[in-house]
Amino acid sequence: MSGEEKQPVAKKRTGRRPGGEDTRGAVLAAARAEFGARGYQKASMRAIARAAGVDAALLHHYFGSKDRLFMAALEFPIDPRVVVERVLAGDRATVGERVAAFVLGLWEQPAVRDRLLALLRTAAASEEVAALVRGFMVTELVDRLAAELDVDQPELRVELVMSQIVGLAMARYVIGAEPLASAAPEEILPLLGRTVQLYLAAP
Amino acid sequence: MSGEEKQPVAKKRTGRRPGGEDTRGAVLAAARAEFGARGYQKASMRAIARAAGVDAALLHHYFGSKDRLFMAALEFPIDPRVVVERVLAGDRATVGERVAAFVLGLWEQPAVRDRLLALLRTAAASEEVAALVRGFMVTELVDRLAAELDVDQPELRVELVMSQIVGLAMARYVIGAEPLASAAPEEILPLLGRTVQLYLAAP
Repeated sequence: MSGEEKQPVAKKRTGRRPGGEDTRGAVLAAARAEFGARGYQKASMRAIARAAGVDAALLHHYFGSKDRLFMAALEFPIDPRVVVERVLAGDRATVGERVAAFVLGLWEQPAVRDRLLALLRTAAASEEVAALVRGFMVTELVDRLAAELDVDQPELRVELVMSQIVGLAMARYVIGAEPLASAAPEEILPLLGRTVQLYLAAP
Repeated sequence: MSGEEKQPVAKKRTGRRPGGEDTRGAVLAAARAEFGARGYQKASMRAIARAAGVDAALLHHYFGSKDRLFMAALEFPIDPRVVVERVLAGDRATVGERVAAFVLGLWEQPAVRDRLLALLRTAAASEEVAALVRGFMVTELVDRLAAELDVDQPELRVELVMSQIVGLAMARYVIGAEPLASAAPEEILPLLGRTVQLYLAAP
């Protein structure tokens, strides 16, 4: 992990080991500030590196691309790339059930669910967080997925799927309406799967 | 509006005109306290009347039944009775489009939308409010509607419709994802209508 020789001249703080916990914390704090100030699309990896006092190449080395850094900074528990892969892999005639099973499986993991609900609550209370989540999801999920779908208004349809998933989480976990709150995932799966199928694949 | 002779012996505060603004305010405050403490189903009109220092018969006269009082106390902008009527009136083969058009029409009214979003935000932040909204909606909408639907798991299906409607509001008005946020109701209507149709009427 020795990379001191790669540190930029402009590095403001010294004694920090690149890749160490203090560097990581500084990068994530700088990322949150930059994402918050400029939004997901306009935020710059270079500006985040500069603010954290680390080399831009080093930032890419440790955090990969902007979506990885965003997910780390906001503790975003779902990887849009994996979602896109799941949707596009396999037969389009069964995409609804595949997506529904994947989503229900994610929400059943307490760590994922808790973090998603926390993000949802924060987004509902803060326009800044709502804008951040919106920018990330539209860029990394909606646009990528819509480009591969063979339907009219693909972006609108992907967002309707997202709206059903968000609403299901609200109704099941936040409002807690029975019998939905206690229903087994297998009871919800066929109904949710048909809806997703309809949005993503029906003419 | 003279009804002083109807006042109960236990009335604590005097000089209040039944049906006047001060009585109304006292009743609504007592209703909020009772609903909050005991939930929608267990809350008692009698206890609310007693706490507000008004006659129970008078309470019924001015506020009608418990659902009316709840809607007034929480400024709940949608009348479940009207929703149930809309769903059950007319051909079951077109129930999806009918419900979708009604809901989209409601949300397009700024006063209704603002109040619903405020309730949604409060419910997301407060378990007590979530429980209140849940109790009201399950009793007055889900159970009434499910009793008339000719499908398996009717309660689950009604709640899936509610979840899609809540999620659509979150995605369209709170998260504000484009193109969903700016789409005309007529663009959303056919897609939402098919989903509601599927939940409420498909085997």
